Amino acid sequence: VSILATAYESLTAAAKLDLKGKAVSQALEELIGRSLTFLSDSCKEKPLQSNVPGKGYFAFQPKGGPEKMSRPVNEALFDAELARKYVSRLVGANLSGFDSATRKKILYTAAMSYCGATDLLKKDDKKTPGTFFEAFVGHLVARSFNLNPTTSINVLNLDLKTQLPTDYVFDFGPGKNKIHLPIKTSTRERVVQVWAHQRVLDGVYGVNRFKGLLVCLTETNMQRKAMSVIEVCLPEQWAVYQMFISQLHRVYYFDPPSKYAALATKYPFIQVKPFADFFAEVDRLTTAAPLA
Amino acid sequence: VSILATAYESLTAAAKLDLKGKAVSQALEELIGRSLTFLSDSCKEKPLQSNVPGKGYFAFQPKGGPEKMSRPVNEALFDAELARKYVSRLVGANLSGFDSATRKKILYTAAMSYCGATDLLKKDDKKTPGTFFEAFVGHLVARSFNLNPTTSINVLNLDLKTQLPTDYVFDFGPGKNKIHLPIKTSTRERVVQVWAHQRVLDGVYGVNRFKGLLVCLTETNMQRKAMSVIEVCLPEQWAVYQMFISQLHRVYYFDPPSKYAALATKYPFIQVKPFADFFAEVDRLTTAAPLA
Repeated sequence: VSILATAYESLTAAAKLDLKGKAVSQALEELIGRSLTFLSDSCKEKPLQSNVPGKGYFAFQPKGGPEKMSRPVNEALFDAELARKYVSRLVGANLSGFDSATRKKILYTAAMSYCGATDLLKKDDKKTPGTFFEAFVGHLVARSFNLNPTTSINVLNLDLKTQLPTDYVFDFGPGKNKIHLPIKTSTRERVVQVWAHQRVLDGVYGVNRFKGLLVCLTETNMQRKAMSVIEVCLPEQWAVYQMFISQLHRVYYFDPPSKYAALATKYPFIQVKPFADFFAEVDRLTTAAPLA
Repeated sequence: VSILATAYESLTAAAKLDLKGKAVSQALEELIGRSLTFLSDSCKEKPLQSNVPGKGYFAFQPKGGPEKMSRPVNEALFDAELARKYVSRLVGANLSGFDSATRKKILYTAAMSYCGATDLLKKDDKKTPGTFFEAFVGHLVARSFNLNPTTSINVLNLDLKTQLPTDYVFDFGPGKNKIHLPIKTSTRERVVQVWAHQRVLDGVYGVNRFKGLLVCLTETNMQRKAMSVIEVCLPEQWAVYQMFISQLHRVYYFDPPSKYAALATKYPFIQVKPFADFFAEVDRLTTAAPLA
């Protein structure tokens, strides 16, 4: 059993009961703190060759031996000392006192902490980093909205009545927006699902009823032989999905790839932003408004 | 290296060059034959508990020891002797002389041959059975249409020009249908991708221009502890996708789950059928016609 297993179990149990609650804040603080301690005390940083313009990366390795390697970590965004110092404010979604650059670092470091540690502590575990990241983002968003999400919606349509499972959805009630919040550590070819689920919500409830906010960690990919890092991006496919399937309202990244960020400036104008910016537009996201 | 590796490499290489060609027929015959020989000579059949009404299952195990187990095999559809006898007619897509029941057995046994053998010969290999199944189905369909598919389409839209990667698409030219052919050994939650890609084709080229034919092997799932088999089906979600994302023209199964087959008889009328039926309606599928 990994040294993080107990804190991870507390997190997932608490997240099911009350995602925005204090118990989730505490479990996250514990899990992020333990992960950062493991990475600082028991690991070293191995520099990687970056094939991403303007970004540098390293991977964590256990101090004992060089066999294992974590996913790539953006060296400009990972700051364990900073994250450890402010982790209790972070898990309370209380980031308003920080400038944008500091906010990005705290968020990125906390998100990477359990993911990087798990890469070294467990073999081929893709599931728990995804579950951690979903609970972490879901908690920060739910606290910011002061509202818990649901994970299914009713489809009522003449003689059809179905309960459709969804990603997190937030319903603020009459006169407000509703939010559809898919969360993924990275997207790859599975991302079309997000536009498809948004399309179902548009079809069942009407266009511009649910705002789709996709939250992603990063799109890095490590090429093991060359020990080099690339970002895997398909911006032209995203543009086609946004044109012909449905319209996502925001795509937030903890480490935005520049090829996706560029989509915000030309048709069909997919609004890709740093997740740090979410906290500055919470009110705007929940206020119902006509399609601009 | 597995005893099937050389034949598998021949298949994938030939499929890239000419999917409907003789070289693919030969590679499939070789690979299916070798797989059936391995299963007959080196394996035993372990009965499984079926929790699927009307269907019985077994799993292959190596004669040496009981550690490994193949995916579940439908005992009523697997007939190695029959498949071996008619494999050369099968890979030529020349199945017109057989009744429907025989056709189903030959198709199912051939599709399961490499998948079942690989479950025992390799560890956690999900990729090569999927690639084999795609080449096998693609070859039979391409031979039946006497036309090779492409795997990308041009999106031309005012100032946008993009090459979009797709599943197999067949273009019969003016006055005929075009076919969109996604192929999956099983669907699970990823299936929404199929409706989403169909939606893109509808949006780019117009509704009822591309007919979507989804081909699947089975939806069985083995519960290891109880050694029992279930079919994982989400028919209400499929109905919602068919209503709100796009309309698939056919869903073919080598072993149709009854919960999906039932979708054909009530709104929104998803036409789920045995893949054996495809060969009887080739002409109808390629003839352009108004939405009924």
